[in-house]
Amino acid sequence: WAARRAVTSEVCVPQGLGRLESAGNLHNLRLAAGRTAGEYRGDLPFLDSDVYKWLEAAAWTEAEHGLTADLAGARDAVVALVRAAQRDDGYLNSWFQVAKDGERWTDLRWGHELYCAGHLIQAAVAHHRATGEEGLLAVAVRFADCIDSVFGTDKKIDGVCGHAEVETALVELYRETGEQRYLDLAAYFVDRRGHGLLNPEATRGTAAGPAYCQDHLPVREANAVAGHAVRQLYFLAGVTDLAVETGDASLRAAAERLWTEMAARKTHITGGLGAHHAEEDFGDPYELPNERAYCETCAAIASVQWNWRMALLTGEAKYSDLAERTLYNAVLPGVSLDGTRWFYANPLQVRDEHLDRHGDHGVSRKAWFRCACCPPNVMRLLASLPHYFVSGDADGIQLHQYATGSYEAVAGTVRVETGYPWSGGIAVTIERGGEWTLSLRVPGWCADVEAGVNGVAVDTVVPDGWLRIRRAWQPGDVVSLNLAMPIRLTAADPRVDAVRGCAAIERGPLVYCLEEGDQPQPGLDAFVLDPSAALTADHDPGLLDGVTVVRGLSRRRTAAHPAWWPYRSGAGPTPPTAPTPPTAPTDPLPFTAIPYYAWANRQDGAMRIWLPMA
Amino acid sequence: WAARRAVTSEVCVPQGLGRLESAGNLHNLRLAAGRTAGEYRGDLPFLDSDVYKWLEAAAWTEAEHGLTADLAGARDAVVALVRAAQRDDGYLNSWFQVAKDGERWTDLRWGHELYCAGHLIQAAVAHHRATGEEGLLAVAVRFADCIDSVFGTDKKIDGVCGHAEVETALVELYRETGEQRYLDLAAYFVDRRGHGLLNPEATRGTAAGPAYCQDHLPVREANAVAGHAVRQLYFLAGVTDLAVETGDASLRAAAERLWTEMAARKTHITGGLGAHHAEEDFGDPYELPNERAYCETCAAIASVQWNWRMALLTGEAKYSDLAERTLYNAVLPGVSLDGTRWFYANPLQVRDEHLDRHGDHGVSRKAWFRCACCPPNVMRLLASLPHYFVSGDADGIQLHQYATGSYEAVAGTVRVETGYPWSGGIAVTIERGGEWTLSLRVPGWCADVEAGVNGVAVDTVVPDGWLRIRRAWQPGDVVSLNLAMPIRLTAADPRVDAVRGCAAIERGPLVYCLEEGDQPQPGLDAFVLDPSAALTADHDPGLLDGVTVVRGLSRRRTAAHPAWWPYRSGAGPTPPTAPTPPTAPTDPLPFTAIPYYAWANRQDGAMRIWLPMA
Repeated sequence: WAARRAVTSEVCVPQGLGRLESAGNLHNLRLAAGRTAGEYRGDLPFLDSDVYKWLEAAAWTEAEHGLTADLAGARDAVVALVRAAQRDDGYLNSWFQVAKDGERWTDLRWGHELYCAGHLIQAAVAHHRATGEEGLLAVAVRFADCIDSVFGTDKKIDGVCGHAEVETALVELYRETGEQRYLDLAAYFVDRRGHGLLNPEATRGTAAGPAYCQDHLPVREANAVAGHAVRQLYFLAGVTDLAVETGDASLRAAAERLWTEMAARKTHITGGLGAHHAEEDFGDPYELPNERAYCETCAAIASVQWNWRMALLTGEAKYSDLAERTLYNAVLPGVSLDGTRWFYANPLQVRDEHLDRHGDHGVSRKAWFRCACCPPNVMRLLASLPHYFVSGDADGIQLHQYATGSYEAVAGTVRVETGYPWSGGIAVTIERGGEWTLSLRVPGWCADVEAGVNGVAVDTVVPDGWLRIRRAWQPGDVVSLNLAMPIRLTAADPRVDAVRGCAAIERGPLVYCLEEGDQPQPGLDAFVLDPSAALTADHDPGLLDGVTVVRGLSRRRTAAHPAWWPYRSGAGPTPPTAPTPPTAPTDPLPFTAIPYYAWANRQDGAMRIWLPMA
Repeated sequence: WAARRAVTSEVCVPQGLGRLESAGNLHNLRLAAGRTAGEYRGDLPFLDSDVYKWLEAAAWTEAEHGLTADLAGARDAVVALVRAAQRDDGYLNSWFQVAKDGERWTDLRWGHELYCAGHLIQAAVAHHRATGEEGLLAVAVRFADCIDSVFGTDKKIDGVCGHAEVETALVELYRETGEQRYLDLAAYFVDRRGHGLLNPEATRGTAAGPAYCQDHLPVREANAVAGHAVRQLYFLAGVTDLAVETGDASLRAAAERLWTEMAARKTHITGGLGAHHAEEDFGDPYELPNERAYCETCAAIASVQWNWRMALLTGEAKYSDLAERTLYNAVLPGVSLDGTRWFYANPLQVRDEHLDRHGDHGVSRKAWFRCACCPPNVMRLLASLPHYFVSGDADGIQLHQYATGSYEAVAGTVRVETGYPWSGGIAVTIERGGEWTLSLRVPGWCADVEAGVNGVAVDTVVPDGWLRIRRAWQPGDVVSLNLAMPIRLTAADPRVDAVRGCAAIERGPLVYCLEEGDQPQPGLDAFVLDPSAALTADHDPGLLDGVTVVRGLSRRRTAAHPAWWPYRSGAGPTPPTAPTPPTAPTDPLPFTAIPYYAWANRQDGAMRIWLPMA
């Protein structure tokens, strides 16, 4: 992760401020602050949130690397601007202060005011932790108090936000300030969603239904994730936070139930979530298309955040399994290797002759989006990524993810050295010891694990995904873990109709794809994997900032196209025998697969993850 | 077709007027005519077109069956209203006369003014042919002259409409009036599309790209259908009309090229077109999803209209093959059997636990739509359907489609009796004879055809899809044609990833589907066809207004769901062997399939056309 995170701190975060300037986000806050004149720029009501996400990313970057004086000064100016834009009563939202003045809290379904407040709170908490500076936190507290004075069953407005986010933020604000009211307010927002507050009338026409905002059922009654994926996932992060703080068993049960449903039926192999472009919806169970997979980068980020909370709540390894898969294969594809271009949607396939690459959701990376929620979201996640690697308690240290670095917990301090994800060798050196348990996650994809302490092998039976080693650790003790990383061919549940008869290539935590430009012939629609041929892995340090490629053999369907109709019948009750065009495969051709996260960094062209086997 | 067409004339058309009243379409025209006061209702600029389509349907209905006095009076009042709404200079569009007064011709991309004009012209031509009455035709001519005075390379506006339609209508107006200017204007609109007139700036954000309106390439240079399916198909109908009238070889070549590309790569087995909900787009080659197939009813109607023009232009049988498939399996599903409820989108699959049935594009039939383009479009097509059955010239009669009825052409008159589509026996009795060629289309799906004249067998080698019998016909001569209709299992080109390993059931021109409610167990996601078991066809006159059902045997995947992750790997270079959940099939279960056109007429539930074979 070091190279990818260096790009974040050295390219993405410094560049982000310029993007927010040119896209108008800062201009809109200046209008709200009375510092400039003009019209609100853009037609979206949540542009402030991009600024807050960027402030959060800057805070985490400062905490780890520090900021250049220029960048710190620019960041401080943004903080001052946010403070200046806040109304005297604590309210803060440039859309409703400038473009829709006087309409505050009148459009909870689409207005995103509480959503923006949530991102402000998260940025303020990060800023406070990183800098110790109180200013932004005071802004967030004033806005939270403003919200608390308005929202409640017995207050002026009984309502929730169309886009969840404020729930998890309020729990974090409670943790940061100790103020019980914020926890109670989070509980209120969690409990009141699902009672139709956002959809008082039957929806009609092309408008989204109540499930879009998770307003169709209270979360304790829901059996399936539904609607807009990012909304659902941010909400479940808040639900889980609340369950952690309150010990509410029914909330925990709901979160566990919905997670299992989502993982088992609505998750792409990449960890990507959201099957529909239309309404950015989860789609039905097992509806997991390839070329039209939406898999919004923000949904993957939200999934990582939710999985981390579930891991802390339950201690179960599977949540960090899914987080690992999602980080490498659903978050990381969202940003180019050089940190300058982005994906909003992350399809699993691009067909030959794909025509339409325009727009936010197209399959060519863009420098920024009209709706630019994803880029600063990637920045804040990657800037804070080590937070998701290790947990600790009085009894020990749990390593959830493997990346080189030093990790400090209450019980002790460890240093990790690893060639992950290219090799599965991990060395953990104890820097500060004591008698405690070192817990090492053995990923679900790993069928062959070896471990030792100071060169002496230890038992590696890990029924629940955790290898636990307890002893009185001395500084300098070295725990070695070796996770075998053979190339794997993976098939899907047959109810995933979209990939019937196909295999995906995986190695370690990485899902692989084929890009047209790496193959000896153009086009991938006619590609057929030869599953009987050997697959080999080779590390190429000069390719795509250094990747391990997988090579094998394939065939191509003959391209003959004699008929105008692509369907062929067999007569009577026997199965059809002659699909057209004839598919007599060609001679074997080599192929080269790259990690999916690195796709679309060279040229446009066809791409696919799932490979037909016949 | 008789029963379905009776519903059209007896239910749909009479009821349609009430829908147009309650949806506001007539109110808006009254506003334009100054007959009432108030606000424009609805937020779409093309609501007038629904009125015109209904007028066209009423005209065709009158020509065949006559109208009741009440309905004829109401229809005449609508014609009078349209006349009253027209401006003195010929312009007529309630959106731009009421909601956007003063903005005429300023938004060609979205305004739909020429599109509405096209539907007005088509309605006027139909009205004139059906009634001989000149009033509506005069309105259309005045509007056409208004358009002709404004649009042209050397006139006030050099532009085309974002939604094609006026091109084919102007050719029809030329045919009806003999006025060359209308043909020239159609040629202008055909030639000027594809030069970026609609997209002067690079598109950004979520806006549609130039291909959406077929403005990315001149039609003579295009190699693939693209963009919004209905726009593309209406445009190609106009291109083909123009090629017919002008003999332009390059236009004909373009139409033939694009038809072949569409049929071979972008057509669902139903004949449905349009793979994306987003932008109602054709999608990429071989991108033919099931549950998210858009297959707008209007696109199917447009395909029938285009296919008919291609059949007349070329004489080739394949165009009427596709029209037959499309009529039965893509148009007819758009209206309920009782004629009161409609589908906008026509998916090929509804999954178990499908949640979201709301909105215009949901999988429950609706009484009307916010964007109600489809219902009156179905009405006008079904009301004029016999126009698509038979063509004639000095040399004979060509029977393109088979339905009981009498058909008159220049050369002679024939009476057709058939049990189509349930049985393939067709008797053609000559009512008015002479020496000419009777051409009978032998559908591409038929592998076994017998024919005879007055009981004497004739040769049935039909290399080009036409069985031609030339003789001096006497009144009372009977030609018998028998098209064998075994049940067929059909597979798709393997590049259609969505249906790999699946078969569809077909019989005669009909595509079959399974509805959950007809099966002995709930759910269809776990359905596996037993392709080794016999399939039987039984006609059930009491079911769904009388259908032939297909029965066979199936198995179900075990529903066990032990794991949270639906993907399973095999190690090393061997193929994965154990998808999860285990798929050991259950004991055989019978299944019942119904014609797809009749689905969603009883209860909600799962549905699928393509059936996994393992």
